[in-house]
Amino acid sequence: MNIVNLDHISANPLLPEVKEVMIEAIRGDLHNPSSQHKAGEHAAGLLEGARQAVAGLINARDPKEIVFTSGGTESVNHAIKGVAMANRSNGNHIVTTNIEHNSVIRSLKRLTSQGFRVTSLPVDETGRVRPADVADAITGETILVSVMHSNNETGTIQPIEEIGEITREKKVLFHSDAVDSTGVVPIDVDLLKVDLLSFAANTFYGPTGVGGLYVRKGTRIFPLLDGGVQENNKRAGAENLLGIVGMGKAAELAARDLDARWKRLVGLKKYLVGHLPEHVDEYLINTNLEYSLPNLLNISLKYIEGESVMLMLDDSNIAVSTKSACATGSLRASHVLLSLGLSHADAQGTLVIAWGIDNTEADMDRFLAALQSTVRTLRQMSPLHKGKEAL
Amino acid sequence: MNIVNLDHISANPLLPEVKEVMIEAIRGDLHNPSSQHKAGEHAAGLLEGARQAVAGLINARDPKEIVFTSGGTESVNHAIKGVAMANRSNGNHIVTTNIEHNSVIRSLKRLTSQGFRVTSLPVDETGRVRPADVADAITGETILVSVMHSNNETGTIQPIEEIGEITREKKVLFHSDAVDSTGVVPIDVDLLKVDLLSFAANTFYGPTGVGGLYVRKGTRIFPLLDGGVQENNKRAGAENLLGIVGMGKAAELAARDLDARWKRLVGLKKYLVGHLPEHVDEYLINTNLEYSLPNLLNISLKYIEGESVMLMLDDSNIAVSTKSACATGSLRASHVLLSLGLSHADAQGTLVIAWGIDNTEADMDRFLAALQSTVRTLRQMSPLHKGKEAL
Repeated sequence: MNIVNLDHISANPLLPEVKEVMIEAIRGDLHNPSSQHKAGEHAAGLLEGARQAVAGLINARDPKEIVFTSGGTESVNHAIKGVAMANRSNGNHIVTTNIEHNSVIRSLKRLTSQGFRVTSLPVDETGRVRPADVADAITGETILVSVMHSNNETGTIQPIEEIGEITREKKVLFHSDAVDSTGVVPIDVDLLKVDLLSFAANTFYGPTGVGGLYVRKGTRIFPLLDGGVQENNKRAGAENLLGIVGMGKAAELAARDLDARWKRLVGLKKYLVGHLPEHVDEYLINTNLEYSLPNLLNISLKYIEGESVMLMLDDSNIAVSTKSACATGSLRASHVLLSLGLSHADAQGTLVIAWGIDNTEADMDRFLAALQSTVRTLRQMSPLHKGKEAL
Repeated sequence: MNIVNLDHISANPLLPEVKEVMIEAIRGDLHNPSSQHKAGEHAAGLLEGARQAVAGLINARDPKEIVFTSGGTESVNHAIKGVAMANRSNGNHIVTTNIEHNSVIRSLKRLTSQGFRVTSLPVDETGRVRPADVADAITGETILVSVMHSNNETGTIQPIEEIGEITREKKVLFHSDAVDSTGVVPIDVDLLKVDLLSFAANTFYGPTGVGGLYVRKGTRIFPLLDGGVQENNKRAGAENLLGIVGMGKAAELAARDLDARWKRLVGLKKYLVGHLPEHVDEYLINTNLEYSLPNLLNISLKYIEGESVMLMLDDSNIAVSTKSACATGSLRASHVLLSLGLSHADAQGTLVIAWGIDNTEADMDRFLAALQSTVRTLRQMSPLHKGKEAL
């Protein structure tokens, strides 16, 4: 089909080396890592090897601090609900921000129906939460602060280290949803001073449906999945060993290539931001260009709908998105963009362009040319745009 | 290694056709099924195709009644916790049995700490719960009955249809953990009158770490994983599409070959049960031979420890287990066997022999010969056995 994939935030392709180890694992008929015979021990070796590689990627001191999950959403649910329920006797208050992923927002909403109180902090006009606001929000009842590392729609990176400083001083547990950051930008759980960190394999070109939760040693947390004693008694259920093996290889390669990838991705970002004005006018950049992921740009095109742009680009075999794929079913404007202060009309005109290590400047050229003609066509049809011209 | 795998209850090998579609999926770089562009639609087609195949296997009327999960444990946690929390205003009482899998037991234990009450019913000496006991246990406060379809240690099948008759009459929701039955024996959710059914792909030679929960249309249930709108808003998170594709193919083949496989497996069971007395004496059969899975036999060998037998058989490249792989970390005697009325000593001498469609009578012969010499060696060393001879 020769599709230009600029929707990497929804799905990254698997790396060739990841495909290779996964195909080998499929052919190898792996047994259950919990079984005590030789076949089980072989499987357990693969599981623990992957755990070490993942621990290395985020600088966890002990691989036992890594819990494999079925992806970012499970990690976030586990962190928030597991910490809340296990620390209820210490308080019932949780602090978060207005721009979190739905997995955070809805996990917290579930908890409020069970007697927890949530304070959700605004972001400034650049899309970042103020650490001082976090400090002010923490009370004697606060048991958890949850702030995302980077936003999945804008790519804007939050001041996690500064917040970690505050939570540690105030002795409150700190979770960061780093699903879109881990494996893309350097993540060091000690430097960030987080107690819990959620991440997903596909972000660093591993398989979808597999992720991890970092749980700092000594953190009080209940399992989300109760049952067997897998994952050091933190997450029951037979492991998705095939996915975990792929994740381990992807983590190893991400750690090795992080700098080189970052340079390549940032180069494409500069290229895109630099050439956009030659192709379209009247747009907003919703990404904080100083603090953001190297592989994502969020723009709002005035007078038109992002969804129409997306569908027309799809006709030209260019894949982009308008917001998180997780929220596709919802027609409402993005809560993230509204939090930035955008009008509903501008928020509707939003495009999320997310590239990967497999994209080139030629892909960006193809996108920019298609975007130019798409925007021209749509604005010619737009009553909003015509109204503006009539003024 | 040429291992004789008689530990199929811990892990089944993938079918060649399942390997093929999974390898194809790995090579095909699937996109996110929630994305609205062409690449997303292609992925969504694969997802919904798998859902139809799985719905067909258990005779669900609407594929939307199938929720893909990360395996049997997640399905069980989702069913029990999701129904309990969503129906709390109708009552706080749940009925179950003493022989459930740890995912059921521990999910219920979690709920009791949140104000739910659980009645756990005994089984008779053949390992089956009495439907009349279920009827008697249901009160005006009962919101859920959870009874496993077959037991993971003994293979004994429960009278689900009769219990379904009762729960339907009394208007109480009914969940069955059918993780070890689905794809092995005929499962028809209408015939069984269940509202919820948990199952896992690996049971029918699909991948581990992927499963499903059947949720009858209209059943009040909360998600276990909150976040995006995937799985018809019942289970958030980017899908393990690779695993789901494998599960779909495995479900299609299981539905097609169920009868032929059953005959083959039952033949091996008769062969094993028939030839055991020629090789060992003084053992108990803990499996109900009238109502049980065709692929599992649970025996207790007197005077010796199952774990020692398992390790010595492993030296002969024969894999068996002593109990559920999920409970490997625990040294306690199986709660299932104690519920059957076994003494602690007899429960310690237990072996779970679980074969699959890839096993042959020659495998059984090799197992029986190795078992004979293992038991002889161990009993010669056993103080219990010596004590008995001295009598």
